[in-house]
Amino acid sequence: MWPDCRLLDLLKIKLPIVQAPMAGASGSAMAIATSNAGGLGSLPCAMLNIEAMYSEIGIIRQQTNKPVNVNFFVHQEPSQDLKKQKSWMASLSKYYSEFELNQFEQKSSNGRAPFSNDTCEFIEDTKPEVVSFHFGLPKKELMDRVKAIGCIVMSSATTVDEARWLEARGCDVIIAQGYEAGGHRAMFLSNDINTQIGSMALIPQISDAVTVPVIAAGGIADGRGVAAAFSLGASGVQVGTPYLLTKEALVNDLHRKALKNSKSDDTALTNIFTGRPARGIMNRVMAEIGPISSKTPDFPLSGTALTPLKIAAEEKGLSDFSSLWSGQAASLAYETSSADFTKDLARDALKRMGSLV
Amino acid sequence: MWPDCRLLDLLKIKLPIVQAPMAGASGSAMAIATSNAGGLGSLPCAMLNIEAMYSEIGIIRQQTNKPVNVNFFVHQEPSQDLKKQKSWMASLSKYYSEFELNQFEQKSSNGRAPFSNDTCEFIEDTKPEVVSFHFGLPKKELMDRVKAIGCIVMSSATTVDEARWLEARGCDVIIAQGYEAGGHRAMFLSNDINTQIGSMALIPQISDAVTVPVIAAGGIADGRGVAAAFSLGASGVQVGTPYLLTKEALVNDLHRKALKNSKSDDTALTNIFTGRPARGIMNRVMAEIGPISSKTPDFPLSGTALTPLKIAAEEKGLSDFSSLWSGQAASLAYETSSADFTKDLARDALKRMGSLV
Repeated sequence: MWPDCRLLDLLKIKLPIVQAPMAGASGSAMAIATSNAGGLGSLPCAMLNIEAMYSEIGIIRQQTNKPVNVNFFVHQEPSQDLKKQKSWMASLSKYYSEFELNQFEQKSSNGRAPFSNDTCEFIEDTKPEVVSFHFGLPKKELMDRVKAIGCIVMSSATTVDEARWLEARGCDVIIAQGYEAGGHRAMFLSNDINTQIGSMALIPQISDAVTVPVIAAGGIADGRGVAAAFSLGASGVQVGTPYLLTKEALVNDLHRKALKNSKSDDTALTNIFTGRPARGIMNRVMAEIGPISSKTPDFPLSGTALTPLKIAAEEKGLSDFSSLWSGQAASLAYETSSADFTKDLARDALKRMGSLV
Repeated sequence: MWPDCRLLDLLKIKLPIVQAPMAGASGSAMAIATSNAGGLGSLPCAMLNIEAMYSEIGIIRQQTNKPVNVNFFVHQEPSQDLKKQKSWMASLSKYYSEFELNQFEQKSSNGRAPFSNDTCEFIEDTKPEVVSFHFGLPKKELMDRVKAIGCIVMSSATTVDEARWLEARGCDVIIAQGYEAGGHRAMFLSNDINTQIGSMALIPQISDAVTVPVIAAGGIADGRGVAAAFSLGASGVQVGTPYLLTKEALVNDLHRKALKNSKSDDTALTNIFTGRPARGIMNRVMAEIGPISSKTPDFPLSGTALTPLKIAAEEKGLSDFSSLWSGQAASLAYETSSADFTKDLARDALKRMGSLV
């Protein structure tokens, strides 16, 4: 039925559709709905503390017996560079005045924690079928422990070099993340966004370079994109933005509204919300001090100084300081449930592939 | 045989493959070979004077009776901004010293002329079956004359808004130019490269927005890309970079070598060679003063000051100052002839589409 069943066989799922883990925007409900519909649901853990991780996986295990993916960031812990943080605060000071907020001496909090010994123990305890990483892989000792449990390990590559690097270190599935993708670029061997690659060119080149199954991510929002991904050599797709319009998404009304009104050229890569490039819908702060700034503190510290502005603006109904993560095909998305979206996407893709005869 | 025959029927061609017009890198030989193989050969006229245009189309008409596309740029004539040109020369002065070249007072020459009354008369005389434009469309009076001849008019869109704009002004075919594409971005309603869109997201959105046939361009280098383009809603493809490795290409050995060694993340958009963003393989001058510079004189004047450096470096076997135009899938290309490439691409695509059943 599907032209390539390698991913289905490896992950023991029915539909080659991975719901993208979207830290802060999706939780157990979306993962459960997607896995029960036959795809691979994902629980993003980067913004959860360890108690929340246990609680969320507990809910998932209660409500589905299907495979699930648990996702972690593997960035370096940032250094607290006070000079850089002061300079960053200075670039935002006019906005603090505008919203009549006090520019207090902020100690940047670290809203996103990397995979660690503690989270590895969580994996050992809960044994998710699939573990995916973003920004590379954890150090060898932790990676060995994850593999020893029997988890299938996935990670994202934005270049052919990154795909080869991941395969050489034991990654079982490579997610080819095209330039179109929303949220954080997974890039870890390069930090040059100028040379990042669109899905049409990236997927076949990564497919040629590795022997493990490749999942296509970036710009895929309907059956046409899924069919195209298979044509290009992928064995499955990872889809994010359309799930942000499902009822299980944890996005607020401003983000939802921005997604619903988004046009093809409304998004850009920006580093101002976290310190790392991520794709979101253009808004005031991106246009005025970015989208790329050289002044941002290290990932993920940049956001701390923006948070009071985001809160103050959102109270006035403005998303001028909010990170409105989105890929480049938001206009193809529609409001539905995660289960229906997953099934519709698969049905649409199969129909499209059949119609190509 | 092909899942969508709208383009084939409209252009009266056998294979839905348009050889991209590549000013300075392709001429009559490539157009003849492609058209005779069943695709649509293109003659780029932007860097030809009127005599050369007549000569080239004469050769084409002698050697093929198949439809052919003649391509023009439709940019605004640049203003000669002496201050800007001096500042641009200043940014290059260290290279002039390095190569022991005299920094003479240069009058920028205009190597690329826009479509005009004279070139419109050339079209009226020679009646090519297809005329394609880059950077929008000519002014209404000239457009009306081209349509009155009965030419099929094509132009490129980099956003949905541009596609709608082109269709509303009589364009018969829209080329959806994804971010992956080599050479000049066709963008004309926006000059913000940060919001440019990858093929995976762009093609379906443009296909939904217009009623005329859509040609996919950008990142397509083998049958997988052609099959993907059809899946996404295109009725055909425009392919450039792989034709640069055919024997009919007018690229020098340095450019050919760079293409053959190119990796997935070797290209970037740069404006330093002409003043407009175009994708090429990263080299020394792009890395050191670009890839995007705010100091470039208006298109197409920027290149004049680089020409002496390009010549001096190339004499030493270096492509450090050459524009090495390339899309993001050069690594999929191989050395062959334009006829064989066209036929192989079509055969590979049909096989790929059949295998999806």
